[in-house]
Amino acid sequence: MGERDKHGHLPLYEWIIQQAREHGLAGATAFRGIQGFGAHSRLHTAKILRLADDLPILIEIVDAKDKIESFLPIIDEAIPEGLATLEKIEIRLYRSGPSADTTC
Amino acid sequence: MGERDKHGHLPLYEWIIQQAREHGLAGATAFRGIQGFGAHSRLHTAKILRLADDLPILIEIVDAKDKIESFLPIIDEAIPEGLATLEKIEIRLYRSGPSADTTC
Amino acid sequence: MGERDKHGHLPLYEWIIQQAREHGLAGATAFRGIQGFGAHSRLHTAKILRLADDLPILIEIVDAKDKIESFLPIIDEAIPEGLATLEKIEIRLYRSGPSADTTC
Repeated sequence: MGERDKHGHLPLYEWIIQQAREHGLAGATAFRGIQGFGAHSRLHTAKILRLADDLPILIEIVDAKDKIESFLPIIDEAIPEGLATLEKIEIRLYRSGPSADTTC
Repeated sequence: MGERDKHGHLPLYEWIIQQAREHGLAGATAFRGIQGFGAHSRLHTAKILRLADDLPILIEIVDAKDKIESFLPIIDEAIPEGLATLEKIEIRLYRSGPSADTTC
Repeated sequence: MGERDKHGHLPLYEWIIQQAREHGLAGATAFRGIQGFGAHSRLHTAKILRLADDLPILIEIVDAKDKIESFLPIIDEAIPEGLATLEKIEIRLYRSGPSADTTC
């Protein structure tokens, strides 16, 4: 999606991460690209950042397949333009807190 | 690849994204890393950015396997040094705006 | 992991990349996210960067499965909190040096 895409008054990527947290997903992280194009072939370029301020945003969300599948319809209608992909991964470490021995 | 790699007068990553758009690929986005090393084990570090200005660049390109396979030889010879990987993903949403009901 | 996580006096992500290089892995790159949450649902936000300076960090490490599997225990105990995932990819180009004909 683009950095300027909104959901209400929030940037769309912030809203999606907020939704992911509220729905109890395991993790979500947003990254800002420096250049790119998507569905409509508009070129987002870091060089015109000062003018356009609409760089591409990638959000990675991690959880079990069924949790992801249930989450997609929640955010679907809020995305005016973008690309969503699913990848199969294996979670090898998921650890919270200050203590280092709580692997699960 | 590195941020300073060039193709002619263009940064290599800009040229690759331009090529991807010209060849009609579905999407491409470049990200700048803050540290890394690749094939020759040179360490690219954000801390020496002001000096070196050669941080690692990752480009993600999304399309059907055959489109990607046809595209790789086009950019192959322009990449003096780097790593290219293929991953199998599933496209779940590919939408160009402004109307929100044009999913395909 | 978070940008402020440390291993000794080094940022944790720098230490992991250093370890990956010392153990001869093919490549590693760190990326800084602009927002996210992980195992403990703390929200890392770019907007509070000036205050918190603890944005999410993603490290991508590429090598054969057995090399990755041997490497995970080396870094495991140094990660107080975080998420590690494995993905199957195919390496299509791995090229070092200034000459463009050393693909392997």
